[in-house]
Amino acid sequence: MIKTDVLIIGAGPTGLFCAHQLGLIGLKSEIVDNLSKVGGQCIELYPDKPIYDIPAIPECTGEELTNNLLEQIKPFNIKFHLNDRVEEVKKNQNRWSVVTVNKKEFNVSSIVIAGGVGSFEPRKFSIKECEKFEGKSIFYSIKDKNIFNNKTVTIFGGGDTALDWAIELSNNCKINLVHRRDEFSGAQASVEKIKKLHSVGKINLYTKFQLMLIKGSQNIDSIIIKHDNETTKEIKTDYLLGFFGLIMQLGPILNWGLNLNKKTIKVNTENFETNQSGIFAIGDICSYPGKLKLILSGFHEGALAARGCFKYARPEEKLKFEFTTTSKLAKERLGIK
Amino acid sequence: MIKTDVLIIGAGPTGLFCAHQLGLIGLKSEIVDNLSKVGGQCIELYPDKPIYDIPAIPECTGEELTNNLLEQIKPFNIKFHLNDRVEEVKKNQNRWSVVTVNKKEFNVSSIVIAGGVGSFEPRKFSIKECEKFEGKSIFYSIKDKNIFNNKTVTIFGGGDTALDWAIELSNNCKINLVHRRDEFSGAQASVEKIKKLHSVGKINLYTKFQLMLIKGSQNIDSIIIKHDNETTKEIKTDYLLGFFGLIMQLGPILNWGLNLNKKTIKVNTENFETNQSGIFAIGDICSYPGKLKLILSGFHEGALAARGCFKYARPEEKLKFEFTTTSKLAKERLGIK
Repeated sequence: MIKTDVLIIGAGPTGLFCAHQLGLIGLKSEIVDNLSKVGGQCIELYPDKPIYDIPAIPECTGEELTNNLLEQIKPFNIKFHLNDRVEEVKKNQNRWSVVTVNKKEFNVSSIVIAGGVGSFEPRKFSIKECEKFEGKSIFYSIKDKNIFNNKTVTIFGGGDTALDWAIELSNNCKINLVHRRDEFSGAQASVEKIKKLHSVGKINLYTKFQLMLIKGSQNIDSIIIKHDNETTKEIKTDYLLGFFGLIMQLGPILNWGLNLNKKTIKVNTENFETNQSGIFAIGDICSYPGKLKLILSGFHEGALAARGCFKYARPEEKLKFEFTTTSKLAKERLGIK
Repeated sequence: MIKTDVLIIGAGPTGLFCAHQLGLIGLKSEIVDNLSKVGGQCIELYPDKPIYDIPAIPECTGEELTNNLLEQIKPFNIKFHLNDRVEEVKKNQNRWSVVTVNKKEFNVSSIVIAGGVGSFEPRKFSIKECEKFEGKSIFYSIKDKNIFNNKTVTIFGGGDTALDWAIELSNNCKINLVHRRDEFSGAQASVEKIKKLHSVGKINLYTKFQLMLIKGSQNIDSIIIKHDNETTKEIKTDYLLGFFGLIMQLGPILNWGLNLNKKTIKVNTENFETNQSGIFAIGDICSYPGKLKLILSGFHEGALAARGCFKYARPEEKLKFEFTTTSKLAKERLGIK
C-alpha cells in the first residue's frame, strides 16, 4: 500500500505541472497513467506537431513540452505508474483508497483527475455478440502475432494499422481484408503493396463490406459480411482483427459518484474540486462556465487545485502564498542554493 | 483618434499574452503602459531574478520571460503606447472612449485591465500642504537638475536615490539631508561619501528627523523638522526633494465605476469581465474566489477574457474553438505556412 498526499490520474502536461505545484507547497504526489509513456494526448496525438499557444514559448512540439515539464518537476522525484489505470476509488475515513487495474493500492488525502478526454481505447465492432469472443478470437491490438500462424485471419479497417498488419501477417496466414469504403486511408505505398499481394492471391480483398453476423460457439466458424448494395457473403475465418482507431472513454471514472456534464466532470473555479470533497479535476476533463480546452488553462487549474489539496493533506497548517523568485522554502524544495 | 478592437492597459506578461490570444482569434489590440518599457513588474522589480513556476520553463528571468512573450506576439504587430497612462474611460454607445495623460484618444469595443498591482508612483510626504508646492518647490523625481544651481535643497530619504542626489547636487547647491532613522540604507560607499561631505561642511545632516511644517506661500521659505525626541529645528530652504521609494497606486482606475475589493477589481471567472460590460480585468489586479497572484494564472485569465472581448468586437459572429496545432486560420494569423 502506497501512502502519499496526492494521487494524480493522468501524466499529460496538466498532471505533470500539477505535480510541480504540489511539490512547491511541500506535498508529495504520484502519477498513474494508462499509456506506456508520459505526455498524454500531446505525445499520443501530436508528438511532433508544433503548438503555438503555450505562454512564453512561441513554438514547441508536444514532445518538447513534455520534456520541459519533466525537467521542471525533476527536483520532486515524482513516481510514475504507467500502463496502469485507476479502477476503484473509495472514501476511507478522511482519506481516499484507490486500487488500480494492476492491483496497486494507494491511500491518499486527495485525488487530482487530470485525465484529458479520458483513456484512449480501441473503437470496437458494433455487434453485441463480438464481446464474448473478445480476447479469444477477436482482437483490437496484437500482443503475440505467432498465435495466428497458419490460420485464417480477417482484418477489418482501412488505415495504416489494418494495412500494416495485413501485409505483415500475410507471410504466415491466410488474410481477408475487409473495409467499409472503396478507398484505403493508409499510406499510398502500403495500399500498392496490398493490391500486389491481392493480385498474387495472398490477400482476399472485400471493400464496401461491413461485419453483419458471427457464426460459432466457442470459436468463430465463419462470419457474414454485407456489401453496401445489401448483398452478403459468408467467409470462413479463425480470427477477427478490428483496427478502427482509438476513441476516448471516461471508463471507471463514471462510477465514482462525480457530477458529470456529458463526458466531463463539473468543478468549481475556486480550487477545481468536484462534488466529492478531496477529489479535484483539471485540464480537458473538467467543466465550468467559460472552460476552454487549452493546455495553459490546465496549468492554472492545477496550480489552484494544488492549494485545494493542501487543506486535506495539512488540515492544521495555513498555507502562506509565496513567489518562487523570493521564497526561501520554494528554492529549498527545488534544490536551488 | 485610434479605433481598434481592444485596448489593453498594462504591458506586463499578462497583458502581452492577452494580446496573443486576441490576435489568434482575429482581434486587434494596442497596449498602454505608464512605464518606459515593456514587461511590467517582471522588468521593473526583478529583471534578472530567476522565476521557477512558468509552466514548461524550468527557470527564466523576468527579462527572458518578457522577451519570449514579445517574440510570441510578433506576428500580430501590437502597437505599444509607453510612458502613458489611461486617465478617462467613458461609455460611448456600445463602445468605450478612452483618453490618456498624453491626450491620446482610443475608441474600442473592450478594455482589458492588466494593470498588475497598479502604477508605480513615488511615495510622497504625508503632510497635506505639500501638495500645493508639488512640481514647483517639491519634487519626487528630477528631470532637470540645473534648476537647483546655487539654491538650498533639502533632501529627505535614506536610500540610494536620496544619497546619490545629495552627493551629485552638493557640487552646485547647498544640501540638507534629512532622514527619519539614524542609519542609511544606501550603499556603504555612498554613506562614507556623505559623511565625508558632511565633515567638510558641504552637506548638513539631520538624522532621526521628519518633516513637520512648511512655511511660505508661493515658494517655500523654510521648513520645520522634528526629532524623535520631540525637539524641532527650522531650516531655510528653496526646494524639497522626497525619495521614499515607489508605491503602487490604482490611480484613475478608482474612478471608472468598477467593483473594487481592497486594491483589486472584482471579476467573474467565466471571462474575467468586471461589473462594467466590456471592461475585463486580468492578472494581479483582479480578484475572485481562489485567486492566486501567479503569472500563469494571468495567462489563463487573458485567454478567457480574449473570448469575452470577441462578443463585443464581433457581435454577429460565433467564435469557433480551435487548437493552434490544427487550425488553419490560427496558423495564417501567426504567419506560418
